[in-house]
Amino acid sequence: MGRWEPDGEGRLRMAAMELFAEVGYEQTTVAAIAERAGLTSRTFFRYFADKREVLFSGSEVLQASMVAALRSAPVDATAMDAMAFALQAPADFFSEDRRDFARLRASVIAANGELHERELIKLARLSAALAAALRARGIGEPDASLVAEAGIAVFRVAFAQWVGQSERRTYSGIVGSLLARLKTLAALH
Amino acid sequence: MGRWEPDGEGRLRMAAMELFAEVGYEQTTVAAIAERAGLTSRTFFRYFADKREVLFSGSEVLQASMVAALRSAPVDATAMDAMAFALQAPADFFSEDRRDFARLRASVIAANGELHERELIKLARLSAALAAALRARGIGEPDASLVAEAGIAVFRVAFAQWVGQSERRTYSGIVGSLLARLKTLAALH
Repeated sequence: MGRWEPDGEGRLRMAAMELFAEVGYEQTTVAAIAERAGLTSRTFFRYFADKREVLFSGSEVLQASMVAALRSAPVDATAMDAMAFALQAPADFFSEDRRDFARLRASVIAANGELHERELIKLARLSAALAAALRARGIGEPDASLVAEAGIAVFRVAFAQWVGQSERRTYSGIVGSLLARLKTLAALH
Repeated sequence: MGRWEPDGEGRLRMAAMELFAEVGYEQTTVAAIAERAGLTSRTFFRYFADKREVLFSGSEVLQASMVAALRSAPVDATAMDAMAFALQAPADFFSEDRRDFARLRASVIAANGELHERELIKLARLSAALAAALRARGIGEPDASLVAEAGIAVFRVAFAQWVGQSERRTYSGIVGSLLARLKTLAALH
């Protein structure tokens, strides 16, 4: 990173999110994002392929960290225990200082059909990757797919709660309480 | 339905699915579907808005039947019990004589990114509708969303198993065993 661009990526990311929220995703240009961040379009393209990348470039990191956590769970961990490790892996990523950014991102995605589709595809890929990692631990089918999908169910609800307007609990705390709740609810059948 | 078109809709549906599988979804025209079914394009448009509709026109029926089953579950049913009623609702719809059609449909959708996105959107809408129906039963949050997402998790895995090549169990039997399995897996955490 150059001397005159301390955290250029972070500034571009926040500038983009502000513009998406203010004037809409469709109407926001790369030039406007760069200008708001006090940088050039050329610098923007050093970090992101296009404006959509600003919203989704974190997805691969997220998936890799969840899969790695699932892989390195203790050998005697049950399938659901291993999934709990995967769900807790992004706790540092979903930190307090990233919550406002995540809230803006969620509202931008909810307002745009194409972005919502992309988010659903990312989650479907994440589920498939987690199921594959469970099978690699020796978990058979349908257990691997069922636990992966149930894990994504917890992840969706946890994330939605974490970005809720008046929510103050940590992502990690929310995940822990939803995993316990799922166990209780499933037992009541 | 006219005298010369017994089950025109069903013939169009199967003709479309055969062509999608044989020459690909993109390459298949409405004219070709109608010709294969021995009907005219005009007749096609009496049943479907476009060729994509052939694949997704069942989704609204499916969602309506699942939501209705959830609503009419016994008053003292737990959230997961009510979800089980919803999941069992399409058992008649996913009958043995529809399994080959469903298998073809699944392979066509898996082979086309745009169709896969649409399928994911339909499932996200189904989840939201089921969560709303649970809230209408007095189930609070996050339980309603968690049970709805867990139900969709079971539905995805159940459907994937039901259309599996060598699968012979009924949809209903698969759903029952996955619900029991989810309870067991969730308890092991």
